[in-house]
Amino acid sequence: MNGRYRNGVRVGIIDGTTIAQSIRDDVAQKIKVFRAQYPQFQPQLVVVQAGECPDSTTYIRMKAKAAEEVGIKFNHVTFPETAMAEEIIQVVKKLSDDDAVGGVHVQLPLGPNVNADDTRAVTEAVSPEKDVDGFHAYNIGHLSLRAASPLFVPCTPAAVIRLLENTGVSIAGANTVVLGRSDIVGNPVAALLRSRNATVTQCHSRTKNVEQIIANWQITVANSSLGNK
Amino acid sequence: MNGRYRNGVRVGIIDGTTIAQSIRDDVAQKIKVFRAQYPQFQPQLVVVQAGECPDSTTYIRMKAKAAEEVGIKFNHVTFPETAMAEEIIQVVKKLSDDDAVGGVHVQLPLGPNVNADDTRAVTEAVSPEKDVDGFHAYNIGHLSLRAASPLFVPCTPAAVIRLLENTGVSIAGANTVVLGRSDIVGNPVAALLRSRNATVTQCHSRTKNVEQIIANWQITVANSSLGNK
Repeated sequence: MNGRYRNGVRVGIIDGTTIAQSIRDDVAQKIKVFRAQYPQFQPQLVVVQAGECPDSTTYIRMKAKAAEEVGIKFNHVTFPETAMAEEIIQVVKKLSDDDAVGGVHVQLPLGPNVNADDTRAVTEAVSPEKDVDGFHAYNIGHLSLRAASPLFVPCTPAAVIRLLENTGVSIAGANTVVLGRSDIVGNPVAALLRSRNATVTQCHSRTKNVEQIIANWQITVANSSLGNK
Repeated sequence: MNGRYRNGVRVGIIDGTTIAQSIRDDVAQKIKVFRAQYPQFQPQLVVVQAGECPDSTTYIRMKAKAAEEVGIKFNHVTFPETAMAEEIIQVVKKLSDDDAVGGVHVQLPLGPNVNADDTRAVTEAVSPEKDVDGFHAYNIGHLSLRAASPLFVPCTPAAVIRLLENTGVSIAGANTVVLGRSDIVGNPVAALLRSRNATVTQCHSRTKNVEQIIANWQITVANSSLGNK
């Protein structure tokens, strides 16, 4: 982290682009070494999308580019926006059973016909061993266990920790605040900080005196507003 | 809670015995009503024990008594203290597959030949649908999800919440401290408080200024010392 000071507090910009590139270089190298030994092995990631939500399409394009760069075969399975959970689940299960597929990633949201409960059912149709999102209850459970050994960790929380660690800030023993308790950011970030020996206070839309709590703690992880969290 | 005051702070004794009796009465009544409609249905709980740790034996005797009182058939499967994880797993899987068994409870610890990883494997040999302890990663995962809908909740944390609710203290919006981050108490209590809209700070052996944190918060859940937590 670049060290500048403002009002006596060190402020810095974390260079995520460079860190991301070093992660991709590392993955590419590992795949190369592994394939030199097992040439018939071809890692493959399949992304499942329903509809064409522009944000999702952009994310998927970026994932495809990153996969290609590191030597992971990328496959994109699309459903119309009107798809029902049952048909998506059927395909997700088939992909989970396919030995040629190493990772199954369901891009959320899944369209207007798939409500929250159905989305959970689709998420859990992914085999925990191929759940690259780390969203299966089995992996979330292992993330919150004291031994913290999930097969996969959700990517945004994992990135938050990686970026924090890169600053040189000490997480162990720090008093930290996590704003939000969503399944994709707040809750897993809190679990990851806790397993790294931070003391975690988790704030959300029902928390009183958030400003005061933040002022007294050393690390704050925020993810947009708390309005609907 | 009986309302007495000491130094201006209300202190009270929560009458757990009476609450426990009312829960057993409620369960007994539900089973009676259900069995009047489905006489062939006989709920059955099986407890699996390895060795004869005196605490475990006492707990199991109390569970057997409570089960008998409410009309749940109780079965006790025992292994010698020297049992290996593999043989226990085999029996646990068989019980999980047995339609006559409604709940499988593995009494911990499992003896000197079963380490932490093996204990986790035994725990996950229980089908999530019969995991009355709520210790399977699948149920722990659902407990930590925002929608918080595990099939079973670990009993001590569930009791903590029930006792707290019984005091009339408002959990939603309260600033709470949980001391400890064990899988059987601290972590699930924190998840339960969070899902009831409390703001939770979780303290553990690496937390600095625990006294100060407790002094500022409204509800503290403590479970013995923090020495090894």
